[in-house]
Amino acid sequence: MKMRNSVEPMLLADCKPREQCGVFAVYNYMGPGNAAIVTYLGLLALQHRGQESAGMAYASTSGIELVKGMGLVDQVFSRPTLDAVKASTILGHVRYSTTGSSNPYNAQPLVARTFDGKAMALAHNGNLTNTRHLHNRLLEEGQIFHTTSDTEIILALIFRYRRQGLLRAIEQTMQEIRGAYAAVLIDEDHLYAFRDPNGFRPLVIGKIDDTYYLASETAALDTVGASLVREVEPGEIVSIGPDGLISHSGKADVRKSLCIFEYVYFARPDSVISGSNVHQVRKAVGSLLAGRVKQTLDMIIPSPDSGVSAAMGLAEALKLPLEWAVHRNPYLGRTFIEPTQNERELAVRLKFNPIAGLVKGKKVAVVDDSLVRGTTARILTSLLRAAGAREVHLCIASPPYKNPCYYGIDIPVAADLAFSSEGLQILAEQIGADSITFAEPEDLYRALGHGSSDYCTACFSGEYPGLRARRRKVC
Amino acid sequence: MKMRNSVEPMLLADCKPREQCGVFAVYNYMGPGNAAIVTYLGLLALQHRGQESAGMAYASTSGIELVKGMGLVDQVFSRPTLDAVKASTILGHVRYSTTGSSNPYNAQPLVARTFDGKAMALAHNGNLTNTRHLHNRLLEEGQIFHTTSDTEIILALIFRYRRQGLLRAIEQTMQEIRGAYAAVLIDEDHLYAFRDPNGFRPLVIGKIDDTYYLASETAALDTVGASLVREVEPGEIVSIGPDGLISHSGKADVRKSLCIFEYVYFARPDSVISGSNVHQVRKAVGSLLAGRVKQTLDMIIPSPDSGVSAAMGLAEALKLPLEWAVHRNPYLGRTFIEPTQNERELAVRLKFNPIAGLVKGKKVAVVDDSLVRGTTARILTSLLRAAGAREVHLCIASPPYKNPCYYGIDIPVAADLAFSSEGLQILAEQIGADSITFAEPEDLYRALGHGSSDYCTACFSGEYPGLRARRRKVC
Amino acid sequence: MKMRNSVEPMLLADCKPREQCGVFAVYNYMGPGNAAIVTYLGLLALQHRGQESAGMAYASTSGIELVKGMGLVDQVFSRPTLDAVKASTILGHVRYSTTGSSNPYNAQPLVARTFDGKAMALAHNGNLTNTRHLHNRLLEEGQIFHTTSDTEIILALIFRYRRQGLLRAIEQTMQEIRGAYAAVLIDEDHLYAFRDPNGFRPLVIGKIDDTYYLASETAALDTVGASLVREVEPGEIVSIGPDGLISHSGKADVRKSLCIFEYVYFARPDSVISGSNVHQVRKAVGSLLAGRVKQTLDMIIPSPDSGVSAAMGLAEALKLPLEWAVHRNPYLGRTFIEPTQNERELAVRLKFNPIAGLVKGKKVAVVDDSLVRGTTARILTSLLRAAGAREVHLCIASPPYKNPCYYGIDIPVAADLAFSSEGLQILAEQIGADSITFAEPEDLYRALGHGSSDYCTACFSGEYPGLRARRRKVC
Amino acid sequence: MKMRNSVEPMLLADCKPREQCGVFAVYNYMGPGNAAIVTYLGLLALQHRGQESAGMAYASTSGIELVKGMGLVDQVFSRPTLDAVKASTILGHVRYSTTGSSNPYNAQPLVARTFDGKAMALAHNGNLTNTRHLHNRLLEEGQIFHTTSDTEIILALIFRYRRQGLLRAIEQTMQEIRGAYAAVLIDEDHLYAFRDPNGFRPLVIGKIDDTYYLASETAALDTVGASLVREVEPGEIVSIGPDGLISHSGKADVRKSLCIFEYVYFARPDSVISGSNVHQVRKAVGSLLAGRVKQTLDMIIPSPDSGVSAAMGLAEALKLPLEWAVHRNPYLGRTFIEPTQNERELAVRLKFNPIAGLVKGKKVAVVDDSLVRGTTARILTSLLRAAGAREVHLCIASPPYKNPCYYGIDIPVAADLAFSSEGLQILAEQIGADSITFAEPEDLYRALGHGSSDYCTACFSGEYPGLRARRRKVC
Repeated sequence: MKMRNSVEPMLLADCKPREQCGVFAVYNYMGPGNAAIVTYLGLLALQHRGQESAGMAYASTSGIELVKGMGLVDQVFSRPTLDAVKASTILGHVRYSTTGSSNPYNAQPLVARTFDGKAMALAHNGNLTNTRHLHNRLLEEGQIFHTTSDTEIILALIFRYRRQGLLRAIEQTMQEIRGAYAAVLIDEDHLYAFRDPNGFRPLVIGKIDDTYYLASETAALDTVGASLVREVEPGEIVSIGPDGLISHSGKADVRKSLCIFEYVYFARPDSVISGSNVHQVRKAVGSLLAGRVKQTLDMIIPSPDSGVSAAMGLAEALKLPLEWAVHRNPYLGRTFIEPTQNERELAVRLKFNPIAGLVKGKKVAVVDDSLVRGTTARILTSLLRAAGAREVHLCIASPPYKNPCYYGIDIPVAADLAFSSEGLQILAEQIGADSITFAEPEDLYRALGHGSSDYCTACFSGEYPGLRARRRKVC
Repeated sequence: MKMRNSVEPMLLADCKPREQCGVFAVYNYMGPGNAAIVTYLGLLALQHRGQESAGMAYASTSGIELVKGMGLVDQVFSRPTLDAVKASTILGHVRYSTTGSSNPYNAQPLVARTFDGKAMALAHNGNLTNTRHLHNRLLEEGQIFHTTSDTEIILALIFRYRRQGLLRAIEQTMQEIRGAYAAVLIDEDHLYAFRDPNGFRPLVIGKIDDTYYLASETAALDTVGASLVREVEPGEIVSIGPDGLISHSGKADVRKSLCIFEYVYFARPDSVISGSNVHQVRKAVGSLLAGRVKQTLDMIIPSPDSGVSAAMGLAEALKLPLEWAVHRNPYLGRTFIEPTQNERELAVRLKFNPIAGLVKGKKVAVVDDSLVRGTTARILTSLLRAAGAREVHLCIASPPYKNPCYYGIDIPVAADLAFSSEGLQILAEQIGADSITFAEPEDLYRALGHGSSDYCTACFSGEYPGLRARRRKVC
Repeated sequence: MKMRNSVEPMLLADCKPREQCGVFAVYNYMGPGNAAIVTYLGLLALQHRGQESAGMAYASTSGIELVKGMGLVDQVFSRPTLDAVKASTILGHVRYSTTGSSNPYNAQPLVARTFDGKAMALAHNGNLTNTRHLHNRLLEEGQIFHTTSDTEIILALIFRYRRQGLLRAIEQTMQEIRGAYAAVLIDEDHLYAFRDPNGFRPLVIGKIDDTYYLASETAALDTVGASLVREVEPGEIVSIGPDGLISHSGKADVRKSLCIFEYVYFARPDSVISGSNVHQVRKAVGSLLAGRVKQTLDMIIPSPDSGVSAAMGLAEALKLPLEWAVHRNPYLGRTFIEPTQNERELAVRLKFNPIAGLVKGKKVAVVDDSLVRGTTARILTSLLRAAGAREVHLCIASPPYKNPCYYGIDIPVAADLAFSSEGLQILAEQIGADSITFAEPEDLYRALGHGSSDYCTACFSGEYPGLRARRRKVC
Repeated sequence: MKMRNSVEPMLLADCKPREQCGVFAVYNYMGPGNAAIVTYLGLLALQHRGQESAGMAYASTSGIELVKGMGLVDQVFSRPTLDAVKASTILGHVRYSTTGSSNPYNAQPLVARTFDGKAMALAHNGNLTNTRHLHNRLLEEGQIFHTTSDTEIILALIFRYRRQGLLRAIEQTMQEIRGAYAAVLIDEDHLYAFRDPNGFRPLVIGKIDDTYYLASETAALDTVGASLVREVEPGEIVSIGPDGLISHSGKADVRKSLCIFEYVYFARPDSVISGSNVHQVRKAVGSLLAGRVKQTLDMIIPSPDSGVSAAMGLAEALKLPLEWAVHRNPYLGRTFIEPTQNERELAVRLKFNPIAGLVKGKKVAVVDDSLVRGTTARILTSLLRAAGAREVHLCIASPPYKNPCYYGIDIPVAADLAFSSEGLQILAEQIGADSITFAEPEDLYRALGHGSSDYCTACFSGEYPGLRARRRKVC
């Protein structure tokens, strides 16, 4: 695979936790246009879930073909490439970007082939927790690996059991893999979807007439005009073929534990997950945060754009003006400015610019959805102070994020941040703010209208569903 | 000049009026980094003023050199290109995009050369009103033209008079040209800026130590960390050279007539024009609009992202919830989906997605900064109705835009919209809304804290400053 | 892997038989420059052996890395890409181009990885004859395949046996694979080369000080300034590591059967294979052809550029003028003219142009190295007749090419050419020539100074070394 | 105009004199295909005359449009770009490459426009000798220049006089310009060609039915299938329009002085200039050289590929074997290897590789068409000696090249070569050869069948046609 000669660095990346992936698939697309264009639209709608690589696999007359590459969806796929795709069933994927583990050979989907033209393609969102064990077992059995992704492990297992039929092969594979996965597989004439028994990562089914869709979020269904049928259930296997959709229960011990960070940060505000709209949940948390903010404030400022929903809730609840006091330049996607020492200060101003006349002498609250490494919070606080703000308070619409995730989220290390022991005042000082207020887990549960039992809150609570005991180390 | 083989079409372009250009220049840049990187940052900060082409001219040891091309700033300039630029004085420009008149040879800056290596480069923002007269006169005198832009006319005049010194040449040229221009010219060792006597288009001066900057907006000065010195005054010529900045009055009959649409739509919300911050003006107009809205409403929804400031003002004044009820996909910049019949409906959903659960059964107001052809308003109204909104009302934070602009703004023709005579109800029906409310000119004047005399409001009022009589036809 | 959106078609491709591949490797490169640049030079020197894809694998601190892509060597590798490679041992490969089987996923080298960062990379030149059998066996054993190339089969076998040490693993693998292979494998600290017991495809060892090289042809060693040490012997395994080069006999029943088409067409004229220089062999065959040509001729014209060596021998032996009477445009490498009906005639003239004044009224002989489908011969004959040649005779410096190759050569189908039964006159008429004269197998043996026993001449003779019986079908 | 970020350097460029340009135009093309594809073919056929930039101008419904860029013909023009051209009359140009004066803004054709959509485009091959005088005069008259090419001067003059009709304007311009020019101009409905009174640079007219062609060489006419009508005569103006071709005598004092280097080096071997085929002239010079070579030789080796025709003549005359003893790698066109100290030796071997077994112990003659700086001669001599040649003699099929050209040829400075005074033996030693033999001017005249009076031989003789007195300095 050809490596990109230059990957545009993300300018002052926000150090948010990063989702592993987004999955989108279409079965039996009848038009208008072609299925590859539709998959392209679906992947664009999920672009926020992964910007490192994008790919599509589809069944053509000459077997399963693959188009994938490093970069954004519109960099990987050109119009002529997509127009040339003749297929009605396509599996698409976007993968997230980190600097360390970014390897072109790990881009998805992955394809397994036999020389007689038979093939299958797999893409998934999530992370296995018994990867190493399975890898070693397969190595012992003689498997060679082309990648270092757990996707290849899932694919190898299914391929190994394929003689029993793909359904049984997936079932068998689900007995052996642990962790988080929302996976989709295609062969020449079927599409299969399966989700781990905890349902950590979301996966929804959509439909228009006889065309089926699978997507990580409902927003992608909306984008292609499909109606939401339902979610793929935790532990369920779904097969879609000429006879329509058939459900198979994959595993017995199901306990729903949806990743709560989908609501906090990952998902699009217009998506609906398990019946709750994401924007409304975020706004509700913002409203509940009002009860926790003790300071006298003059105005509420959203961190652009991640804090907008919560800031609306907070301003409304506090009856304070909401001000668009920090402008974010929307044209920076692919600039080559690197945050080197020389250019860093320039780059900060290129990205964010406060309105001095608005904040001068004022007590302002900056609202964001979460705080991980605090980079953006530090920058905004410093810019607002330089613009004349008298006090800068931080309001974070989620609890402190203290524990690593083993289910597919890349958490930036924040070892230097004083989250818990010394108290919030020290943390505020580290960031340069006058105070910092976090939402409590209860605020999230109230906003969601459920107790904590339906969610994985390990990053807040340290309780890891599906692991036999509470563990803090990567297994 | 090599034409781009494929220009990514703007997806469902909003049919807003379009600014002609943005200008950015730096004189005597001393580091850190190089002056080309700084100019690149300045142009990125002005990217909203023009997306068709970008260019830089700079004085190198081998004379004035030019780097320009079609496309966005980050498409035209690569890191190695900019790193190779050895110059402390650079003139940059971004140009707007339309389908019709988009010609690579009209990209700015333009350069005039003599064979002994002397040269000058010019870029401007605006539009002359006596272009044809001057063109014919110069043709008579034997001038050949390589472009069809009025920039070449201004350059030809200055070049023609250059023996008297550039200052006198600019002065003489300003006697002969009519219309709107905020222009910057460089030769090997000076930088000159000059602005038409009405000051239609903005141009500000910034400074850090002995380094001077010129920019169309203060936001570009903020971006590079420069302090605002003052505006180039209407009718003024400014020269910047080894002896610093010197001001020359260019023309006698000065009457300030700043384009009011800079506040309404063109300028960045964080820019300050003639002492007024743009976001605050827009929010104030939104507040004043509250007095004009007669309908009972459940929530205020900004048109993303152009209606945000005004929506904040309206929601605050009406004490109604502000809701981020329509999500706009931020990853569409360079997609190749064309709004053909087949793909148009798909494309609408790709760009905008309403939150059905939020608006269902509700009476909503959609707020936007202006209404020209009504395309976006139509789409949002239709999407919100389909999502279940009971009533959809439009609130526009500027008066109806009825007259053509001769000073550098490209106004989409809206001949089919019933702006004035038949009344607003017909217009609302044309768009599909339940009602439509416009701000009045007085709202803008109040928000700005001035009377109408300081602004060009020809697009609202038909009063064209600098034209001898009120005229509706292009001269 | 991202597919290329447009593959420049070969203009009027000559329908020559096509070599599978070229291999180049360097071990322990010490400078000057870096090892990737040296590998790039070596691959450029072997570019004639494969133009479809190019790749390099190398051991970096983070394991085996891979850079490969579709296209020519200088399209796949950019200067920054190569400059960034930190490695002293690199394995490079060029692959040939056909329309049908051109799949990005078949580009070489291929890499096998384990999750602990261990990896190996393999590239080879040749073709296995028991591919299907091995494939099915490995499938039974649970192997998944990402490609449809026999390279993956060899790699899977070696990987499977790797616990015994790579040397034993290669030995075991060579017991199981049949057919033609000249293969090179690297892991983190060694380089291994092995060649099938017939030695169908060439592979030579070069050396400068303590740096070792492996290459398909001596010309690549010359290019990087390395001295020829010797050939890798048929059936031999060579390992190169910190202790230098060690030879291991791989297989017992060795019978040298070098592909005779390496001399006829594939190899560069300046390469030396088994002690014979390719240009001199071709020229000698041309001289011997003189005894077979019965026609009275006025001049000898080489088919540019493949017939030059033989034409020199023929002209010298016949004491006739050699004329450069057909010019071949050297700038056509990447033109996009397709041989569609409309453009075909234009394209012919773009590629070849005869000198009318030179050939008018003359009896000319056109000399080429081989005749497969006769496309070029047809075109040249037709152009020369149109230019006024009185007679056009074809002289082919190899025997008719009648049988398919199972050892790595892609033979264009020439079912319509009357090679044998009806006689040469019919063939000449099919091509439009006045006569056609072929070299006999004995001419090649005499030119080579050996009998037929050292060569694979299956394409002429139908005698397939290493197959138990003479077979005509692909096994 | 966007500058290319990286221009692939020519690897070990031969330091041959460089032609200024190639011109190709088509009028009233009727198909098959479109006129832009035909112009593309014509320019590819002339690519050897200029590799720096390429361009086309054509009359579309919206006036004269221009596609041009830096690089080779197939880099500048893409298939979609050409397919989109709707025009039956096109003017194309290729420009040569030097490092110093390579400016994108000097690429041709140049276009002059008026705002009412009228325009004309000009391209030429040659060099004016009174450029500075005309430039200053036009500057005085107020002209601004965008380029530093004399093309813009010719265009400015014609544009200035255009009111009299283009024919009269060209006539008037030809009264004022001095030097070498073979120029073509198009407006919306005509094509004009004109050539200086000495006819320094070639220009031929071709025809198919009612479609006319103009080209710098007959090979380009052959390429597009057009018949040669005749040359544009020295001093002639030709107009081609709806009424066909009309000839106008432009200037009185005509004296034909065709550049003799067209035969020696510039033109393609298959072109015919003034009735003589280039290859045959070169071969004849090679034959005549036989009488001047005094050494005993074993074989004749052409310098690939420039010495092939002459080497054929020499070998034939001396009855010595012609050997293809140095292989030139044809895949180097766009490699990025720079001749830095580190990589230079590698690069030499990448480009040229001698066959050691062939030359070992032999007395060889290397034949080239000309010797300017001697770089290639030095390299070949050194490589052949290293390969074991006993003696290496140089045979050059043209006289020593001593004087600068003012008519459009870029001559590399060879101040360090001892051409004349000290004698040839010193020169041979400088190059490393055992001897060096040049052709005499008489050999060229004999090979051409004319005396010296029809040619410009200033580079050999110092006699400059059209300059009032013999001068050695650039005026």
